[in-house]
Amino acid sequence: MKKKTKSAANPAAMAAPFVDLGFARVDTDRQRRCGFSEVIFAQGKTPGQVLAIARTLLEHGRTLLVTRATAAHAEAVARAWPEARWHELARCITVELEPAPKLDGAIGVICAGTADLPVAEEAAVTLELFGNRVERVTDVGVAGLHRLLAERDRIAACHVLIVVAGMEGALPSVVAGLVDKPVIAVPTSVGYGANFGGIAALLGMLTSCGSGVTVVNIDNGFGAAYAAAQINRLVNAAR
Amino acid sequence: MKKKTKSAANPAAMAAPFVDLGFARVDTDRQRRCGFSEVIFAQGKTPGQVLAIARTLLEHGRTLLVTRATAAHAEAVARAWPEARWHELARCITVELEPAPKLDGAIGVICAGTADLPVAEEAAVTLELFGNRVERVTDVGVAGLHRLLAERDRIAACHVLIVVAGMEGALPSVVAGLVDKPVIAVPTSVGYGANFGGIAALLGMLTSCGSGVTVVNIDNGFGAAYAAAQINRLVNAAR
Amino acid sequence: MKKKTKSAANPAAMAAPFVDLGFARVDTDRQRRCGFSEVIFAQGKTPGQVLAIARTLLEHGRTLLVTRATAAHAEAVARAWPEARWHELARCITVELEPAPKLDGAIGVICAGTADLPVAEEAAVTLELFGNRVERVTDVGVAGLHRLLAERDRIAACHVLIVVAGMEGALPSVVAGLVDKPVIAVPTSVGYGANFGGIAALLGMLTSCGSGVTVVNIDNGFGAAYAAAQINRLVNAAR
Amino acid sequence: MKKKTKSAANPAAMAAPFVDLGFARVDTDRQRRCGFSEVIFAQGKTPGQVLAIARTLLEHGRTLLVTRATAAHAEAVARAWPEARWHELARCITVELEPAPKLDGAIGVICAGTADLPVAEEAAVTLELFGNRVERVTDVGVAGLHRLLAERDRIAACHVLIVVAGMEGALPSVVAGLVDKPVIAVPTSVGYGANFGGIAALLGMLTSCGSGVTVVNIDNGFGAAYAAAQINRLVNAAR
Amino acid sequence: MKKKTKSAANPAAMAAPFVDLGFARVDTDRQRRCGFSEVIFAQGKTPGQVLAIARTLLEHGRTLLVTRATAAHAEAVARAWPEARWHELARCITVELEPAPKLDGAIGVICAGTADLPVAEEAAVTLELFGNRVERVTDVGVAGLHRLLAERDRIAACHVLIVVAGMEGALPSVVAGLVDKPVIAVPTSVGYGANFGGIAALLGMLTSCGSGVTVVNIDNGFGAAYAAAQINRLVNAAR
Amino acid sequence: MKKKTKSAANPAAMAAPFVDLGFARVDTDRQRRCGFSEVIFAQGKTPGQVLAIARTLLEHGRTLLVTRATAAHAEAVARAWPEARWHELARCITVELEPAPKLDGAIGVICAGTADLPVAEEAAVTLELFGNRVERVTDVGVAGLHRLLAERDRIAACHVLIVVAGMEGALPSVVAGLVDKPVIAVPTSVGYGANFGGIAALLGMLTSCGSGVTVVNIDNGFGAAYAAAQINRLVNAAR
Amino acid sequence: MKKKTKSAANPAAMAAPFVDLGFARVDTDRQRRCGFSEVIFAQGKTPGQVLAIARTLLEHGRTLLVTRATAAHAEAVARAWPEARWHELARCITVELEPAPKLDGAIGVICAGTADLPVAEEAAVTLELFGNRVERVTDVGVAGLHRLLAERDRIAACHVLIVVAGMEGALPSVVAGLVDKPVIAVPTSVGYGANFGGIAALLGMLTSCGSGVTVVNIDNGFGAAYAAAQINRLVNAAR
Amino acid sequence: MKKKTKSAANPAAMAAPFVDLGFARVDTDRQRRCGFSEVIFAQGKTPGQVLAIARTLLEHGRTLLVTRATAAHAEAVARAWPEARWHELARCITVELEPAPKLDGAIGVICAGTADLPVAEEAAVTLELFGNRVERVTDVGVAGLHRLLAERDRIAACHVLIVVAGMEGALPSVVAGLVDKPVIAVPTSVGYGANFGGIAALLGMLTSCGSGVTVVNIDNGFGAAYAAAQINRLVNAAR
Repeated sequence: MKKKTKSAANPAAMAAPFVDLGFARVDTDRQRRCGFSEVIFAQGKTPGQVLAIARTLLEHGRTLLVTRATAAHAEAVARAWPEARWHELARCITVELEPAPKLDGAIGVICAGTADLPVAEEAAVTLELFGNRVERVTDVGVAGLHRLLAERDRIAACHVLIVVAGMEGALPSVVAGLVDKPVIAVPTSVGYGANFGGIAALLGMLTSCGSGVTVVNIDNGFGAAYAAAQINRLVNAAR
Repeated sequence: MKKKTKSAANPAAMAAPFVDLGFARVDTDRQRRCGFSEVIFAQGKTPGQVLAIARTLLEHGRTLLVTRATAAHAEAVARAWPEARWHELARCITVELEPAPKLDGAIGVICAGTADLPVAEEAAVTLELFGNRVERVTDVGVAGLHRLLAERDRIAACHVLIVVAGMEGALPSVVAGLVDKPVIAVPTSVGYGANFGGIAALLGMLTSCGSGVTVVNIDNGFGAAYAAAQINRLVNAAR
Repeated sequence: MKKKTKSAANPAAMAAPFVDLGFARVDTDRQRRCGFSEVIFAQGKTPGQVLAIARTLLEHGRTLLVTRATAAHAEAVARAWPEARWHELARCITVELEPAPKLDGAIGVICAGTADLPVAEEAAVTLELFGNRVERVTDVGVAGLHRLLAERDRIAACHVLIVVAGMEGALPSVVAGLVDKPVIAVPTSVGYGANFGGIAALLGMLTSCGSGVTVVNIDNGFGAAYAAAQINRLVNAAR
Repeated sequence: MKKKTKSAANPAAMAAPFVDLGFARVDTDRQRRCGFSEVIFAQGKTPGQVLAIARTLLEHGRTLLVTRATAAHAEAVARAWPEARWHELARCITVELEPAPKLDGAIGVICAGTADLPVAEEAAVTLELFGNRVERVTDVGVAGLHRLLAERDRIAACHVLIVVAGMEGALPSVVAGLVDKPVIAVPTSVGYGANFGGIAALLGMLTSCGSGVTVVNIDNGFGAAYAAAQINRLVNAAR
Repeated sequence: MKKKTKSAANPAAMAAPFVDLGFARVDTDRQRRCGFSEVIFAQGKTPGQVLAIARTLLEHGRTLLVTRATAAHAEAVARAWPEARWHELARCITVELEPAPKLDGAIGVICAGTADLPVAEEAAVTLELFGNRVERVTDVGVAGLHRLLAERDRIAACHVLIVVAGMEGALPSVVAGLVDKPVIAVPTSVGYGANFGGIAALLGMLTSCGSGVTVVNIDNGFGAAYAAAQINRLVNAAR
Repeated sequence: MKKKTKSAANPAAMAAPFVDLGFARVDTDRQRRCGFSEVIFAQGKTPGQVLAIARTLLEHGRTLLVTRATAAHAEAVARAWPEARWHELARCITVELEPAPKLDGAIGVICAGTADLPVAEEAAVTLELFGNRVERVTDVGVAGLHRLLAERDRIAACHVLIVVAGMEGALPSVVAGLVDKPVIAVPTSVGYGANFGGIAALLGMLTSCGSGVTVVNIDNGFGAAYAAAQINRLVNAAR
Repeated sequence: MKKKTKSAANPAAMAAPFVDLGFARVDTDRQRRCGFSEVIFAQGKTPGQVLAIARTLLEHGRTLLVTRATAAHAEAVARAWPEARWHELARCITVELEPAPKLDGAIGVICAGTADLPVAEEAAVTLELFGNRVERVTDVGVAGLHRLLAERDRIAACHVLIVVAGMEGALPSVVAGLVDKPVIAVPTSVGYGANFGGIAALLGMLTSCGSGVTVVNIDNGFGAAYAAAQINRLVNAAR
Repeated sequence: MKKKTKSAANPAAMAAPFVDLGFARVDTDRQRRCGFSEVIFAQGKTPGQVLAIARTLLEHGRTLLVTRATAAHAEAVARAWPEARWHELARCITVELEPAPKLDGAIGVICAGTADLPVAEEAAVTLELFGNRVERVTDVGVAGLHRLLAERDRIAACHVLIVVAGMEGALPSVVAGLVDKPVIAVPTSVGYGANFGGIAALLGMLTSCGSGVTVVNIDNGFGAAYAAAQINRLVNAAR
């Protein structure tokens, strides 16, 4: 049994900067550490709070993303930056003082039904802000397989696939069986009764018979996009 | 608002016979009322109890089915009736003093994976005892769709389809989108972790995007077969 | 052990048509494949989206069903087709440019209490649009058995029985013990407390001691009707 | 708004006796306070612990009940008191140095299926030890109503009805609709799959459409018997 | 093994009357069968439906109880019968064309906190309409035991005790340890977080260490009162 | 085995005072027994009820705390006592006729995100009313550890740490690994999807790998503050 | 709005030592950081792994605690250190090369029933190893309050109270209402049915009406003891 | 609104080969479609079934992986191929007739505690068979952060990070905040009580405040490795 006494090698890395606004500590070091700057999750924050955090972030970076935003958040941000865009279906606000560099390769955003579109669009808006090209494939639920199979080549050409589905959430299993690319599954709360607000889709995706499917939280289009963007950046960095 | 004072029209129908064994009341009227004689669910019953009920049923009918049986139950029954058969994989015992009349049309028993076979076989044994022809289609999970599509014609020719699946339970949704026949879904407890003993498959089937899928209890191959047999008998009666 | 190398026999069957509206892919092949044309689930769709899908479907078929519709959906559809009917209690819209052919035999729609009526009516409206005759039996919960037994002959004469119940959901077990026809159980979210939005009724129906009861999602009157219509069509086809 | 300053009127009542055995405090005052002496729940106790508690109780009373006992507990108790009886099916031990006085009126113990018998017998043994007459009605599940209706007069004549059922637990609702006596429902863990160890029956009984059904814990035959015995004692005291 | 072939002895009892209003079948036989006439559960019914059922019931009886009623229901009923009373806190409507005969003995309605009062009052109003005297003991939660103990004599003098509590639902266990009378526990949805809408209190009461506690559905004050009234009627009948 | 017959030694202690307002029994003895006077939980109480209880408490004590209050409650209290303060973010009302004596040592109130502030403030307001000094550390979630580590010395100097977090609730585990002081964890309902209203955070805190973390109910800032205040009082009493 | 740019002040604190055994990293810095040295949770570890970790810890400290240990673990440890003690009921191993300094004040370990003793003893053994005096109060469940009240003075004299209970877990609420000291509640898995392996007790304790009750994981006697020891050390340090 | 009528473009792709063994359909096309050949999940399969499938796979490929294998499976495979290796801790069997080509870049497999090693090793064995280099970082749970921070550089250098944790599952959130690489989280069933067999860790990971964390099923080390291998292959393909 080998036995080594060690101590933490790089404590200095912990001396990272942030800005304390009192109600929030804005992590201005995140771009350096994690590759993307902090994103504002607007739910539960006032327009004023969102604005103050946004200001701090845009003093340190060139793009801004606000998710789970309302029209009130959007108006507050638009007054401060005319470049702001309000993506109503996706419930997102973006500000691009300067666009992110464009990456090679596309990310597929595939969704099972029309009612899953808000979650799919949250993913698509996030991906595009981060410099990725998006292939949207909509309403290809498994009860009419030919609709999915008609898009097989377009899907197979993507670097990563984000698959958004509510109800029984079977679509990621089927997609994973058709391609050799990472599949990130997003369960949605679309449905009723034994769907239990997305639990049926979530459990279905976690227990998928399709190998290598990974899953994010219910309705978390942003999280899936973030993970896909990390992968695509890694691929682009390797070129 | 119409308003009618009624009273129960046919109370005499309640005067149906049964046999009281003390620990069980054998419903010897069930064949007349429901079309199939009573079936013994052996779990939680001693071999002696199963034998006593079996004896009463075979005094009133010509076939016997025992489900969820163990080898000990099978031995007890085999000693009493040499005709008894022990279906080990299906955990069933059958006795046919005289076989049930054969019905036209087949019932498809489709299962997603090898581990689902015991439940599928419980369904198949039940169907055959009740006089139905069974088409078995095994290991056609959605992660390799071509395995299912290769059997599409055989499946489409059946009167009713029983679809057995564990894990995310997506197979019934896909099958329902391919055919115009009733699909009865059986979730199994096959899987681990977020499968929660079959809950994932059960919820997935209940929230299926495939129209008209009906569902039975987890691992309830017998129940699905019973429902399918009722449908097939109805179809045969119409000829 | 037999061992066969196969390949999918009928890939051409996958080359089925659909219409891509951008936000939805309308499955215009469903009538051919599944026997009924696509039905619009309105929840989560705008009146405009419902109208666009409806238009596509009525270009390819003669009847239309919209479920979980609101008055706003109904108005939009009524402006486009004067034939449209708004079934308020059932929350359904139907359009019959030409009625479906009438089938022999009735489907019973039995409900346990007055509060279960919206779900029962969703089933009844669906069945009638698909050409089935419906026998409605209302408020026959098990706490007053004589109310159910008074209708025993009318129930026994149906081809299929849809049994709708909330609270403890015991009615399907009792009905299944009285007849020799398929029983499709619909749990409703009627109740409070330990009913948990329909879970009590759902679990009760899944674990029914009545053989052959199959179950659909909570409040899914449409799904039960679809399954019953499939069975009745099969019976009529056999004549 | 009336406003009263009070203080606890009868603190002396708290000065009740008990015997401290170190690992247990035997409540020798319970007979006086609650009308029945303490009962030993053997699960999780060693034979030695059961014996020590039993000794203390029989020094202060004339009867003893041990529930959830194993054969090992029974042997230990039998060595100490030759009067001890081991009720194997009910998993109970009773010792009657002197029988309890017999009460007028019977308690019905009705059970839905053969597999529910251990729970029903736990109730029956408890009732008999407490001086009650028991009417046993076995295997009258709702899928064969005529079996229950055949016993209607015997059931209606009881003072209280204990109804024991697993699976969907529908029997108490039906019984409550037939009689004008208190119905105490006992869900059992009999079943599988969506029964979830008795949850289906428990929820079904809690949400019963039968008025006035009260419920005890899953498999708690003793608790139901205790409540029924309290009621019957109250009735007898009124004579 | 004794073996008896039986058939249902009293089928005529099933020929009981009811009134069919189309949307409801009013069980006018319930008073004869169950001892109390039918009670209207107003939730999910329109004022018109409640009124029609009420009319039918008051044509066959002398008192009426409507539970889970709103002010709109109350106004509709008050217009038809000037005797109607609206118990706002209890959400009940009562009509007494002639009061029920008064019974001997009181029923205790004990509640843990002020927020549990609506449920406790539903029980009290029901009990009083059925002719019982009610002892109300309010806000005696277990975190200040002296408040409960101050009422010990008043509690001990009741025939039956209804104990209403939210949060952890501990009060029935404590009460059951102080008295020799039946304790009926009513969990309420009062609380937040891990209370989960009353589940914490419900599970606490079902697993009570107090012997003989029986439980009704969350917030079901009516059900507890109905059961208590059955017991008190039985006691009064024995005098 | 030692065996002691005991009886309750100090029953007189049960003869404690309270004030009965009809709808509430105000526990005016609590300050003596438990060290803090009763606190009013306003949810589910009318402004009038809150006022009446407040009046009774302030007749017996010098400070008042109302939690889960609305603006309507605050206005009613402010009209009666001009000293009243409305802490809107914390949803609390305080009245200090005379401030509580100040204690030595600080309590840290650490929260993971901006959206957790209402719960953290409920804790802070409670602590300050009880005479404790509070160190607020806000928005130090584990995804940016350097924000927490920057406050390490301030945190380590506190007597007790209250750690408030939603989502996965990981912060208490990390804090507990950094200090040698009691850590009280408060899960919040902040989050969505698989957070299930705070269950994810609650389970995470209960299963924390950090030794000695204790947990209170979801969103229960008051409870955590009460426990911390008890500890700090004990420490101050020891000086 | 104040706004401060900060960076982590004391990164060096992260340069703490540990010993890497390959399969485990022993945190030899914990005594300095957290005040107690690391404790071995034996469940899921082989005797060899436990021994290797134990050796490392005893090279850096003077006492050792192993929890959730089996006899096999105990034998392995006893062979290495003759001072080792095996606390079978508590499932703990302790080694004291030199006892911890004794602290002033006692910790009460109160348990509701005999079956809760293993969890209570795990707490008591932990406390004693850490230098605390323990007052054990056993079998004082709330169904016989006088047993608890008889010990009121002994309980009130403790610095902290650990209250261990299964079933409905009501004891901590009652204890918290009697004393002015911190109450740490430990739910146990003792019970059956709706207890759901300790969930009933856990939820009951989390929703306790007793102010300031904090809760640890089901059966986590060690965690409660660790938290109590932290408090008592703080109190002793203040002297 | 654009509107396109399409039909499935490449149905021929569905004509893929498989081998039908009766009890299983071996998907010999998977390597072509998905990039890795089929993997055998041994749980619920007999040694004979595993062997037959293995034989078919090794006739079509050069490597074999069997997961969730027992010693009996390992012996059967070892008799057929002397190259077989039995990874006991990982519960895996591997056969490499020819090793997979080695890929550039490492995958980090980080685990929180010693008891998580079996799951972590399942991931590591899978990765190595697929040609990836693995960096193992063991026992770096968040209660001793310095153990993790000491490995920060080694972790940051990996292409993908698999983070395995039981209990509260907080480690992935912390790791995701330190790096700019994809983090795949694996909850384990390690823990007890409120861990509920891995649910606590699963929910914690799904609701992680660390952006971009994706999650697989409880204990699914294989799935995480498969996803990581897909990503690494994509990166290598880009070089």
